[in-house]
Amino acid sequence: MKRALFLGRFQPYHKGHQSVVERIAQEADEIIIAIGSAQWSHDLKNPFTAGERIMMITRALEDLPNVKYVLPIEDIQRNPLYVSHIVSLTPLFDVVYTNNPLVKELFSNAGFKVRSTPLAERHQYSGTYIRQQLLEDENWRGLVPEGVAHIIDEIDGVERYRRISHQDTAIPFPME
Amino acid sequence: MKRALFLGRFQPYHKGHQSVVERIAQEADEIIIAIGSAQWSHDLKNPFTAGERIMMITRALEDLPNVKYVLPIEDIQRNPLYVSHIVSLTPLFDVVYTNNPLVKELFSNAGFKVRSTPLAERHQYSGTYIRQQLLEDENWRGLVPEGVAHIIDEIDGVERYRRISHQDTAIPFPME
Amino acid sequence: MKRALFLGRFQPYHKGHQSVVERIAQEADEIIIAIGSAQWSHDLKNPFTAGERIMMITRALEDLPNVKYVLPIEDIQRNPLYVSHIVSLTPLFDVVYTNNPLVKELFSNAGFKVRSTPLAERHQYSGTYIRQQLLEDENWRGLVPEGVAHIIDEIDGVERYRRISHQDTAIPFPME
Amino acid sequence: MKRALFLGRFQPYHKGHQSVVERIAQEADEIIIAIGSAQWSHDLKNPFTAGERIMMITRALEDLPNVKYVLPIEDIQRNPLYVSHIVSLTPLFDVVYTNNPLVKELFSNAGFKVRSTPLAERHQYSGTYIRQQLLEDENWRGLVPEGVAHIIDEIDGVERYRRISHQDTAIPFPME
Amino acid sequence: MKRALFLGRFQPYHKGHQSVVERIAQEADEIIIAIGSAQWSHDLKNPFTAGERIMMITRALEDLPNVKYVLPIEDIQRNPLYVSHIVSLTPLFDVVYTNNPLVKELFSNAGFKVRSTPLAERHQYSGTYIRQQLLEDENWRGLVPEGVAHIIDEIDGVERYRRISHQDTAIPFPME
Amino acid sequence: MKRALFLGRFQPYHKGHQSVVERIAQEADEIIIAIGSAQWSHDLKNPFTAGERIMMITRALEDLPNVKYVLPIEDIQRNPLYVSHIVSLTPLFDVVYTNNPLVKELFSNAGFKVRSTPLAERHQYSGTYIRQQLLEDENWRGLVPEGVAHIIDEIDGVERYRRISHQDTAIPFPME
Repeated sequence: MKRALFLGRFQPYHKGHQSVVERIAQEADEIIIAIGSAQWSHDLKNPFTAGERIMMITRALEDLPNVKYVLPIEDIQRNPLYVSHIVSLTPLFDVVYTNNPLVKELFSNAGFKVRSTPLAERHQYSGTYIRQQLLEDENWRGLVPEGVAHIIDEIDGVERYRRISHQDTAIPFPME
Repeated sequence: MKRALFLGRFQPYHKGHQSVVERIAQEADEIIIAIGSAQWSHDLKNPFTAGERIMMITRALEDLPNVKYVLPIEDIQRNPLYVSHIVSLTPLFDVVYTNNPLVKELFSNAGFKVRSTPLAERHQYSGTYIRQQLLEDENWRGLVPEGVAHIIDEIDGVERYRRISHQDTAIPFPME
Repeated sequence: MKRALFLGRFQPYHKGHQSVVERIAQEADEIIIAIGSAQWSHDLKNPFTAGERIMMITRALEDLPNVKYVLPIEDIQRNPLYVSHIVSLTPLFDVVYTNNPLVKELFSNAGFKVRSTPLAERHQYSGTYIRQQLLEDENWRGLVPEGVAHIIDEIDGVERYRRISHQDTAIPFPME
Repeated sequence: MKRALFLGRFQPYHKGHQSVVERIAQEADEIIIAIGSAQWSHDLKNPFTAGERIMMITRALEDLPNVKYVLPIEDIQRNPLYVSHIVSLTPLFDVVYTNNPLVKELFSNAGFKVRSTPLAERHQYSGTYIRQQLLEDENWRGLVPEGVAHIIDEIDGVERYRRISHQDTAIPFPME
Repeated sequence: MKRALFLGRFQPYHKGHQSVVERIAQEADEIIIAIGSAQWSHDLKNPFTAGERIMMITRALEDLPNVKYVLPIEDIQRNPLYVSHIVSLTPLFDVVYTNNPLVKELFSNAGFKVRSTPLAERHQYSGTYIRQQLLEDENWRGLVPEGVAHIIDEIDGVERYRRISHQDTAIPFPME
Repeated sequence: MKRALFLGRFQPYHKGHQSVVERIAQEADEIIIAIGSAQWSHDLKNPFTAGERIMMITRALEDLPNVKYVLPIEDIQRNPLYVSHIVSLTPLFDVVYTNNPLVKELFSNAGFKVRSTPLAERHQYSGTYIRQQLLEDENWRGLVPEGVAHIIDEIDGVERYRRISHQDTAIPFPME
């Protein structure tokens, strides 16, 4: 049996991720989705909690039984320990799918097979772009799977993101 | 929809846990199994990595579709933050199943419903007892689900546990 | 009895903070001042230790008996745990005074009353502006309560800040 | 002006502590009470949060104006850094009151004056003994200042402590 | 060239360690001595700082040029990351010398050669025994290399250890 | 005997560092080289592990017997504890050589002698400049001691640095 690891922060999980997972599903028997930076939420780069991201991904992938594991992974913040950290928290896997050069370097050095994940229409299908859209209008809905949009609505995610983005003054955190 | 949280270290996952999960499955639509102390392994109280424990539980529960989430949770080591930590890393849930008085206290104070999980034949179906059996003979096999025994065999878990338990001298870690 | 929490880094405590505290004192019986980022000092955004900041605030508020608690709070660096962290380290309180959108969001979600603290002449009464003044001339003295200026003089704070700001070379920390 | 530091965990603050503070008040102009292990609560050795301990001490010392600072201090867990940690989080002080040999050693090495705090009737006036009494009957009331007993009642502290002590089974945390 | 790693806490470095190093020197071109638990000192199991232990070992091994590296290593406290942690902080090595079953297990799994270090007269040549002797009389001098005894004298190590061991009361740290 | 401390990150160790060490060697009997940010590697500012940096420095200084200690030091990330942290992990020293204003401030406050290290041709002999050269051509070879170039070649350091620098897309870590 062949098991693949797909790493991301998924803030939020979008159609670019979805198409990668669908491609991995053609090559692997089981897929592990590891949600990095699990401890972060409620900031501009990380609006959603790990729990919310798990719900998004599970909903979006209901019809893809290959995805057997959707796991929150807290950052280790020490590059030389990164691979050991991931390995200890996940089921055994054979291949890592990533476009990140550092992740490639670290897993390659540790002897893992690493595959790239060519993304179509990258500009649109990026977390940065979609988070920007969350602030502005409804365009974001077309960029994420329908199940993800449902979760974002249920948790009132758009309003949350607008509120925490509303830094109308020079006051840093918590207050100078 | 009703979602339940079941917390444990699962070192290893055994038939006592299994019977609790089967009971929860009668009361809840979806079950989250949260694997605590995820960062620990290779010691006398925590022989197995979180990844290995995820494999055990997934294998043992293949026929129980209610268990939608099996999640590694690193310790937070601050009791007053424990509930917020769990909540941020898991999908939303309505009720917590536990026999641990501290877990009960913390989740009750935070307004969660908490249920006890009466265990039959408690002495046998305890992690401490089963780990002791791992050192001695084959009795442990009868105390865990078949799928768990397969995983322990695959990772050569009995031999690992015997090796790390073999403190034949007074030498503490790493070496005095 | 009504107890209010006022959060800040107070680098340094200035007249803008003072006027906020005086307003809170009209509405609350007791005030808790929580000094965030307590573990930081000796850098450009955080020149003063928590101990020094406690001395500044205590001196500035000698005549305001409502301020019963001036407490150092180390950062938790996990937004979802922030409220639990603050709550565990402070006496019970009813209302939080803050202008920070994230702090508002987090305490509101946790069920606390949150009030804004409209600041007059915000530009001048900001930590960033006052720290800039520390480097340049004596204008900063007019922006902080007299007691705070005394403490800064006693600890030779202006000279300290100028020394640590004197990065006349490209050498990063500690030395490349 | 002479400022003294008094260190403790205060689980709970009791009459033994109170008599030490009263003695220090005869020798020092201002007293800093530093509450160690601030991040711990809800366990057998540390039932109360730092916030609760601050309330206890503030209430018990209402008539002792020398006590100007009651501060939560999280553990640093590195003995060689302990003195720097305390110093950075507290106002300047001249003398440390403690009976703990390690605290004596560390502050003496760092050049501080250190004084012992001879306790009368030590057996009774100890946190360990009083926590034991919390489990059994009403004797603990006589061992703490009246204000402390009020706070313990207000937070339902006795019942909390009995609940978290009720480890009627061999189940460790969270559940094996 | 063959490089060997020798791991220990060295509280203190004693003749048992010395004889192991001398044996390794016959088999390896270069030796790395890694001092574990580097962040601990001033407690009963770890009286000496990492800096002091470095001085001890350097002094004791002045005539053994194979020992090229004597390195402080802070604990990582996560067994699955232990090997990566050591590897990232040390020069490349071929073989690990240890008697500790866990260290053996972890380095073997990671593909390293591991050798045992049979100790003669183990009872006497153990850190636990020697620390006990420090409290009692002068026997410890015969159990450590002469250079180590000089360092312990220079830093007044015996008196320090006796002072921090003098827990004549039930007072836990810092004070109950 | 006079012992000097020289602090740096040494990413990589270059001829500017080498000339400083040679000057210190004229004034001190023994030199401690402390490698800061030891836990970092594989990023743009910190390409090399602490172990690799130890090998570089040891190789470059083979003929300078005054350098008795080359030590990895993990960051403490709390300025007020920085001096205690360094002191606990290193042999006793009399004087610190640094050009960093913060390091000067902290060690001066703690009572240490601090000396500047005037660097000739600073622009070239800086880690930032040399790391930039690693990406472009062979000029870096002239800027580091020959032994350092050998180590970088042995570990294939140029290729590693180019791979992890190859962020050809907007994809942040690990993948959005």
